[in-house]
Amino acid sequence: MATRVAVDALGGDHAPGEILAGAVAAASETIAPVLFGRADLDPHGLELIACGDLIAMHEKPAEAVRAKPDSTLARAVRAVGDGEADAVVSAGNTGAMLAASLLHVRRLPGVLRPGIAIVIPGRRGPTVLIDAGANADARPEHLLQFAHMGTVFAQEMLDVRDPSVRLLSIGEEPEKGNQLTLDAHALLAQADGLRFEGNAEGRTLLDGDSDVVVCDGFTGNVALKTLEGTIRSVLEALRTEIRSSLTGRLGGLLVRPAARGLRSRLDPDTYGGGYLLGLKGLVVIAHGSSSHVAIANAIRMAARGVEHRLVERLAERLPSTRADSAE
Amino acid sequence: MATRVAVDALGGDHAPGEILAGAVAAASETIAPVLFGRADLDPHGLELIACGDLIAMHEKPAEAVRAKPDSTLARAVRAVGDGEADAVVSAGNTGAMLAASLLHVRRLPGVLRPGIAIVIPGRRGPTVLIDAGANADARPEHLLQFAHMGTVFAQEMLDVRDPSVRLLSIGEEPEKGNQLTLDAHALLAQADGLRFEGNAEGRTLLDGDSDVVVCDGFTGNVALKTLEGTIRSVLEALRTEIRSSLTGRLGGLLVRPAARGLRSRLDPDTYGGGYLLGLKGLVVIAHGSSSHVAIANAIRMAARGVEHRLVERLAERLPSTRADSAE
Repeated sequence: MATRVAVDALGGDHAPGEILAGAVAAASETIAPVLFGRADLDPHGLELIACGDLIAMHEKPAEAVRAKPDSTLARAVRAVGDGEADAVVSAGNTGAMLAASLLHVRRLPGVLRPGIAIVIPGRRGPTVLIDAGANADARPEHLLQFAHMGTVFAQEMLDVRDPSVRLLSIGEEPEKGNQLTLDAHALLAQADGLRFEGNAEGRTLLDGDSDVVVCDGFTGNVALKTLEGTIRSVLEALRTEIRSSLTGRLGGLLVRPAARGLRSRLDPDTYGGGYLLGLKGLVVIAHGSSSHVAIANAIRMAARGVEHRLVERLAERLPSTRADSAE
Repeated sequence: MATRVAVDALGGDHAPGEILAGAVAAASETIAPVLFGRADLDPHGLELIACGDLIAMHEKPAEAVRAKPDSTLARAVRAVGDGEADAVVSAGNTGAMLAASLLHVRRLPGVLRPGIAIVIPGRRGPTVLIDAGANADARPEHLLQFAHMGTVFAQEMLDVRDPSVRLLSIGEEPEKGNQLTLDAHALLAQADGLRFEGNAEGRTLLDGDSDVVVCDGFTGNVALKTLEGTIRSVLEALRTEIRSSLTGRLGGLLVRPAARGLRSRLDPDTYGGGYLLGLKGLVVIAHGSSSHVAIANAIRMAARGVEHRLVERLAERLPSTRADSAE
C-alpha cells in the first residue's frame, strides 16, 4: 500500500498553487499525497479532504490551533494522530504546526521535548542541525536527546552509518561555551551510542564536517537564519558588483551556470524543510516560501521517513536516553 | 601630543612581522604606536618596550595573565591601566585580553559587564554587533547596557547621529525569543535614550538595516562566526564551481575585480577587530589572523576612539543606565 502523506494545501506563501503542484509531482505508485484544502480545489486526481478554515502565517499558534479545529493545518496534522495518514507536510505557520503536533500527534514515551531537524547542504556532505527552533529555552538533557534524534535521522534519512555528533558552541575546546553547552558537553561526552566529537563553531556549519550538530532551538534558529541570509546576501551582492561594469556583465554571463549550480546545491528546498522529531508520527514543516519543488521533496522525504520507520527507530532509542539524563 | 596606542607585537598568528608592519603603517604625526615585544625586535623607529614573555593562543586566559605579568599582552594592557598609553591593540589570545583588561584597565563605574562590539560591514552601512563574545551567559540588564554602549560606539566611531537598536532574536514579533530576549525586549522597549526598533533576525545581519544589534555573547559569537564562515564558504565554493569549466574560467577572469571588490567590502579587517567596551580605557582585540592592514586599521580606530573620547562618553552614559535596570 502506498504511503499516505497528508498535505496542507493552504499552508505557505504560495498556497494552494505550488503546494498542489508539488503534491502532484510527488505522487507515485508508492506515495499517495492526501490534500487538505478548500472543497472547490481541483485536486488533479489526488484525494482531497475538504476543510472549512485556514490558519494564517501571523496568527498566534496555540490559540489558532484551538480556535480552528477545521483548519487545513489542524486537520492534516490530526490525520497523522488518528492514523489516517502516515506523515504530514505543511509550509504553514511553524508555531501552529508545533502546537497542533504536540496536541494531535503527541510525544513518544521518554521524549522530553521534540526538536526540529534541518539538513544543511555542506561542502563535504549534509549536516543535520537539531534543534532549529522548536525550543527557545532548552536544558542539557534536551540537547542529549537531540543528539540521539539527529543520529537516527542521519542514519535513516541520509544513509550515514555511524553519524558523528558535535555541539554548537563558541570554541572547539570543551571549556568554551555558556552554562548550557558546558553541561551538555559533559552529558554528550559520557553518553552511550553516540559518536560525539566535541564542539563545532558556526564558521564550519557549511563545511559538512559533522553529520549532526546539536544546539538549543534559539541558537539553532539564529545560526540557520544567519546562514541562509548570508548565502543570499553574498550572492546578491556579487551580482550587483558584477553588473556594475561591462567586463563584469560579460563575465557574469559566462559564470552564470556555475553560480546556478552553487545556488542549487545550497538551496534549502533540497531537503524539503524541518523535521519535527520525537513525536508518534512524522511531521514536516516546510519553508513558508516553499516552491512546488520544495513541497515535492518534503513529501518524498516524509515518505522515505515512513518507509525507513524513522518514528519507530526513534521510539526504540529514546526511552533509554532518558535514563542517563539528569532530569 | 600624539595618541599613544600600545601594540602587542607578539599577539596573533602572523606576529611579529604583520603587527610591526601595521604599526609602522599607522604611525603618523597624531598616532604613536608603542610596541611591546622582544628586546631584539627592530622597531623601525617606533618606541619599543622590551618584554620577557609571551602568552600563546591556546593558553588558559586567566592563568596565563596571572602567571605571565611580563608578557607582551599583559604589559601592553597594563600600560593603559597605568596611563602610559591611551589605548591597546592585540591580535593575541582573546580570553587573555579579556582577563588582563578586567584586571588592569578595570570596569567603569556602573558597568555590570564589559561587552565586545564588532562592526559588520552591511549592504546599507555598518552594523555594530554587541556582545560578540565577552559574556557567554548574560542577563537582560546586561543587554540593556550593551544597547547603550553600542549606541555610543556607533555615534563616536561610525558617525551615526541617532543610532537605531535591535535585539537579535528568532522572529520580529516581540513575543518571539527565549526567556533572556523576552525580558531584554521589555527592558529595551521602555529604556530612555535608545532608539529601539524591536527584534532583528540573523538573516538581516548583512543588510545593514540596524545601526546596533544587541545580544548575549554566546549568541553573538555563534552568529558572527556563522556569518564569517558562510561568506568564506560561499565565495570559495563559487570559485570552485567557476573553475570546473572552461567558459567558467574565462568568465571568472572577467568577474575577478567584482569579486575582489565584494571580498574587500565584506572584509572584517576593515574595522580592525573587536572593541571591549565598558572599561576605563580602550581595548581593541584584533582577529588572530590579522594582516598588517587589519592591525593598522585597528590602531587608527583606537586612536579615533581616544580622539572622540569614547571612554569618557561611555562613562557619562552608563551609570544612569544601571538605575533603570532590574539588578
